[in-house]
Amino acid sequence: MSGNSFGRLFVVSTFGESHGPALGAVVDGCPPGLELCEADLQFDLDRRRPGQSRHTTQRREPDQVRILSGVFEGRTTGTPIGLLIENVDQRSKDYGDIQDRFRPGHADYTYHQKYGVRDYRGGGRSSARETALRVAAGGIARRYLEQRYGITIRGWLSQLGPIELEPKQPEIANDNPFFSPDPDKVPELEEYMDALRKSGDSIGARVTVEATGVPAGWGEPVFDRLDADLAHALMSINAVKGVEIGAGFESVTQRGTEHRDEITPEGFLSNHAGGVLGGISTGQAVHASIAMKPTSSIRLPGRSINTAGEPVEVVTKGRHDPCVGIRATPIAEAMMALVLMDHALRHRAQNADVPDSGLELRDLLGE
Amino acid sequence: MSGNSFGRLFVVSTFGESHGPALGAVVDGCPPGLELCEADLQFDLDRRRPGQSRHTTQRREPDQVRILSGVFEGRTTGTPIGLLIENVDQRSKDYGDIQDRFRPGHADYTYHQKYGVRDYRGGGRSSARETALRVAAGGIARRYLEQRYGITIRGWLSQLGPIELEPKQPEIANDNPFFSPDPDKVPELEEYMDALRKSGDSIGARVTVEATGVPAGWGEPVFDRLDADLAHALMSINAVKGVEIGAGFESVTQRGTEHRDEITPEGFLSNHAGGVLGGISTGQAVHASIAMKPTSSIRLPGRSINTAGEPVEVVTKGRHDPCVGIRATPIAEAMMALVLMDHALRHRAQNADVPDSGLELRDLLGE
Amino acid sequence: MSGNSFGRLFVVSTFGESHGPALGAVVDGCPPGLELCEADLQFDLDRRRPGQSRHTTQRREPDQVRILSGVFEGRTTGTPIGLLIENVDQRSKDYGDIQDRFRPGHADYTYHQKYGVRDYRGGGRSSARETALRVAAGGIARRYLEQRYGITIRGWLSQLGPIELEPKQPEIANDNPFFSPDPDKVPELEEYMDALRKSGDSIGARVTVEATGVPAGWGEPVFDRLDADLAHALMSINAVKGVEIGAGFESVTQRGTEHRDEITPEGFLSNHAGGVLGGISTGQAVHASIAMKPTSSIRLPGRSINTAGEPVEVVTKGRHDPCVGIRATPIAEAMMALVLMDHALRHRAQNADVPDSGLELRDLLGE
Amino acid sequence: MSGNSFGRLFVVSTFGESHGPALGAVVDGCPPGLELCEADLQFDLDRRRPGQSRHTTQRREPDQVRILSGVFEGRTTGTPIGLLIENVDQRSKDYGDIQDRFRPGHADYTYHQKYGVRDYRGGGRSSARETALRVAAGGIARRYLEQRYGITIRGWLSQLGPIELEPKQPEIANDNPFFSPDPDKVPELEEYMDALRKSGDSIGARVTVEATGVPAGWGEPVFDRLDADLAHALMSINAVKGVEIGAGFESVTQRGTEHRDEITPEGFLSNHAGGVLGGISTGQAVHASIAMKPTSSIRLPGRSINTAGEPVEVVTKGRHDPCVGIRATPIAEAMMALVLMDHALRHRAQNADVPDSGLELRDLLGE
Repeated sequence: MSGNSFGRLFVVSTFGESHGPALGAVVDGCPPGLELCEADLQFDLDRRRPGQSRHTTQRREPDQVRILSGVFEGRTTGTPIGLLIENVDQRSKDYGDIQDRFRPGHADYTYHQKYGVRDYRGGGRSSARETALRVAAGGIARRYLEQRYGITIRGWLSQLGPIELEPKQPEIANDNPFFSPDPDKVPELEEYMDALRKSGDSIGARVTVEATGVPAGWGEPVFDRLDADLAHALMSINAVKGVEIGAGFESVTQRGTEHRDEITPEGFLSNHAGGVLGGISTGQAVHASIAMKPTSSIRLPGRSINTAGEPVEVVTKGRHDPCVGIRATPIAEAMMALVLMDHALRHRAQNADVPDSGLELRDLLGE
Repeated sequence: MSGNSFGRLFVVSTFGESHGPALGAVVDGCPPGLELCEADLQFDLDRRRPGQSRHTTQRREPDQVRILSGVFEGRTTGTPIGLLIENVDQRSKDYGDIQDRFRPGHADYTYHQKYGVRDYRGGGRSSARETALRVAAGGIARRYLEQRYGITIRGWLSQLGPIELEPKQPEIANDNPFFSPDPDKVPELEEYMDALRKSGDSIGARVTVEATGVPAGWGEPVFDRLDADLAHALMSINAVKGVEIGAGFESVTQRGTEHRDEITPEGFLSNHAGGVLGGISTGQAVHASIAMKPTSSIRLPGRSINTAGEPVEVVTKGRHDPCVGIRATPIAEAMMALVLMDHALRHRAQNADVPDSGLELRDLLGE
Repeated sequence: MSGNSFGRLFVVSTFGESHGPALGAVVDGCPPGLELCEADLQFDLDRRRPGQSRHTTQRREPDQVRILSGVFEGRTTGTPIGLLIENVDQRSKDYGDIQDRFRPGHADYTYHQKYGVRDYRGGGRSSARETALRVAAGGIARRYLEQRYGITIRGWLSQLGPIELEPKQPEIANDNPFFSPDPDKVPELEEYMDALRKSGDSIGARVTVEATGVPAGWGEPVFDRLDADLAHALMSINAVKGVEIGAGFESVTQRGTEHRDEITPEGFLSNHAGGVLGGISTGQAVHASIAMKPTSSIRLPGRSINTAGEPVEVVTKGRHDPCVGIRATPIAEAMMALVLMDHALRHRAQNADVPDSGLELRDLLGE
Repeated sequence: MSGNSFGRLFVVSTFGESHGPALGAVVDGCPPGLELCEADLQFDLDRRRPGQSRHTTQRREPDQVRILSGVFEGRTTGTPIGLLIENVDQRSKDYGDIQDRFRPGHADYTYHQKYGVRDYRGGGRSSARETALRVAAGGIARRYLEQRYGITIRGWLSQLGPIELEPKQPEIANDNPFFSPDPDKVPELEEYMDALRKSGDSIGARVTVEATGVPAGWGEPVFDRLDADLAHALMSINAVKGVEIGAGFESVTQRGTEHRDEITPEGFLSNHAGGVLGGISTGQAVHASIAMKPTSSIRLPGRSINTAGEPVEVVTKGRHDPCVGIRATPIAEAMMALVLMDHALRHRAQNADVPDSGLELRDLLGE
């Protein structure tokens, strides 16, 4: 495979370019009987959709998804679910002048080297527009995980440049355009972003995503650990440069007595593990954070070369997000949903007959 | 698959438990004609091997690898390479008292929940002893990458608890028992570890690994990006809790003008990308770091429960590494080798006929 | 995966039901730079298309394929190719009376048992309409194989019920509605089919497919042999009950001295092997035949049960092929193209650097 | 992968050459809790083992399998099962004179063309000795299928050259050296084989394998149909040239009214489908037959060429089976076991929650 599929049992294959006629996906392996309609997927698509506030790109895409197969009379049938989103608001002429030059920090040069040919309009296949289909496919996984297992997946912006955001009210992160889990910080974020946009520059961000209600026992040692698959999934999102599970890089300076999560008959006393031990879920919240780089598509000129190897100055026009981290929250949630869904299916394939241990440890963190 | 295989075209499948008769691996997909003998793999195995200094576990395993197939008259034949390492120095009686209790921070509880049954001796399948086979298999990839493409993979310890280590002389990191790239810091490390060992506690670490000589164009967008596959590979190493590519979490506070690596006809002016853009290698050094948690196997008592759900105190006997990060350097190198090898093969499958662009950009970092 | 993808490196994933809004496919792994437009795929689609003569189903589907991605300015870019065919001429009401009963010889009962729910209209996912996408995807493989390697794939009807057809002029099999390689037999076929249609019954068939120009060395021992992958591919076509490579079941009564294909410096003296030895291509014509069962959708009543387990009589209305083998020729060709394409890519991944042996043996058969 | 693994969820990877130190396998995905010891696997290995009668090769290999991992205190743990069989009775000097010449009908030429290098001793990797590991791995699947689902898999020789064998008593096929299901024909088989051995020639055969007790609903449309996966599995056995499911090639001349298996509330009235409809099991006996070519390793001289392209005469020394079909019965059973096991796991991954339909149709064939 050329890397456009994700998952082993719940397999999502996406296609489509930023300025082509449409993007789509095939979702293979969904259990039959799940109630599903297009509106169910639209909620998350709208959260990811551009143009929702002045802080994101002004491209106006309705991102309306059509279900082309795999659903009959309102329920999944177990056959592959075809998804399609048509591109509506392309402005391909914006990209004529990057046809033969490489934007620094962008995939232009690497696609050119790899394939010899590329659809340069809007980044082509390397555009984050592809993630709309991940969000749609992830929405299917999400519904199943919630209805079958009671799993809730929730993400939020945990840092934007210098501004750190505590998860004070993650459940209302959707109510502001930044997915800030701390509503009191929204004015500060707005001010920061307005100044940034004015300057023409961009900024990095940190996004956190968490799943609660995941049963103990999901994840396949040795290579396909739940955390390793999460790392794969999250690092595959455009612009991500780092992934942490649980304590993440804080573990480097922790002692064993501090890091290890002690257990009582009622549950775990802490969750530095991020809900994964030995690659397998513990029953605690599965917790991951990602670092997102500042978008490379900025209007401040940068040094580069063209396809002839000559030095050029690059100024990126088009409509871009000054902080791609903002719209990344629903994407990270979707990728976590895909990983959990895949492991749910893998787990029951092999371990369907394992008797219940009688142990169910709660996450006592913060109680 | 139950997760014991890694790679799509250069596929490594491992088996074996810490205290079983032997561990082994099948390496499928190695090109024919590569000169290979057991001694070639032993060098890295010896670097990972326990008992090399007083700072690692005192289990005495020769970790002598046998090649059982796939090599004929000193060269690979293109058929699968069977590898075997016998266990010699098991002391299984050390583990009798954890048979029915879960060590905090360990995979005991999750294996119990997943499988209902587990080989508790020395951690069984969850033991880091499995990584010996990764190092052996990675050694094959390494040789191929070096001989066919001139790629060098080099790792080092970049932080041990509070002690940060600059890559002053990474090329001699092998010459000290800590894989420190800064030889001047070795006495400080020794002192720290001696005190730690005395205390009975353990500590986290940070390891960095870098590949130079990787051609531009390797990596498969969208999901199987080179960095996503690296994240998967590195996060699958026991005790890893975080992965960074290039600037990693520093990207969160960087501006676009700072992060983007500008290009001149001679090459890239910086490498915040860590050698990967859009999931595809740029030709620069591929650069990754990992966070390793402090080992959970410590002799300081911790609260836990037993299989009946009753509270118990756990003290881990046996012989363990107070800092698993120390021996992780060759493992991280091996995993990077496996990822690069897989993408080398994948790249040429699809892009064998892409004409040379005439562009080859050097990494001008630090020049 | 739930089985809707085919191939390891050239991966085709299909979706869609007979009476849903559309069917589609994602083709992942196509090398960049191949000239491709929709018309290139339409030729084979038209050959498979229903309603071309009175001897096949009278459903009128234009089967017009749209390329939604992966092609830019007339050339493939190396990114996934999205294909879409809309359903136009559904007459779903024909199927109301099989909603709760199982047609004998059909997948109704097995889908019901597997999924608990099914889209009964026109067979839903089990309909041979899905093969239109295989033909489209196979058309891409075919073009590449022809342009890059000079491979020609050609199929024909080799038997229809009792009428055996010799490959007298396989190159003009397209010129008659039966894909008969013997034009003189066409009147006999017409007469047979007219009588059959009148009787309301259906008949089995045998189809042969052959690829010439395949280089020696393609195919992966041990499990993914070229012939094993062909068997998988061909047996996955609706209604196929048997697959033969080369001499096939004639081998049962052959002696070793008769079956083995002797070699001279000019080439092979026979081709009982069907172009594959040890799972790897010999350079001779790759030759396979399939047995197709008579379609189960006939208007002659048959005994069956309904979903309540009660006995019912089933009469299949709708528009069906009295011999599904007739339209199977382009499908078998497409599946052979997909297998060869996948192995072309797999071969060069591992064996890119194998030096030319200097040996190239022709197929001397019939000279 | 280079084709040395089989299965998606129950994955068997084999390694080893005919005259190397050992052959082995990794079996990944076995559910935990299955009682398993080496003796359980030895029964089938002994059935396949050479030298059991004068009618097979006289190489004396004990084929004693060791379980190296994945089993603890007599039960599988869910971790990969490592299997090893050491080679004992190699007589590599027999093969010196085929080092640089290609035996007709053998994989010598194709391996040479593919890899440029080959272990010529005893056929190296292309030797049917590799199938010993398939039998061992299949033995694990078999035990699980029998204990968990009550499935019985049984194979027999259905034709040896001109001698057809009816399945009069398939349950005692093991009691004679030919796996003949008709004990009365054994003297005729002995006579035929004695004359054949004397002549120096070899002969083809037909083997049939059947699984009873398979639940309805296993198999994944569209590509990974149960019958397509069986075709893949069976065609991957050395020397197989054809595969039939159910009526197989007889379907070509059947009418729909004859072929379709009618259904009554008690069950199916016939089984032309071979237990598979639309790629999914019906609950009837899953029935397949294979055609095996006559072994190419015969002492009667044949024309060929050497690696320099010069004409040579080839006489195969060494110890070979004059009819490879005889020992193929346990191999075919093993491959059917692997396919069913894989689909058992795949089925419950996706369809674990499908409610029982209340329908269970027996196979009324022959009642």
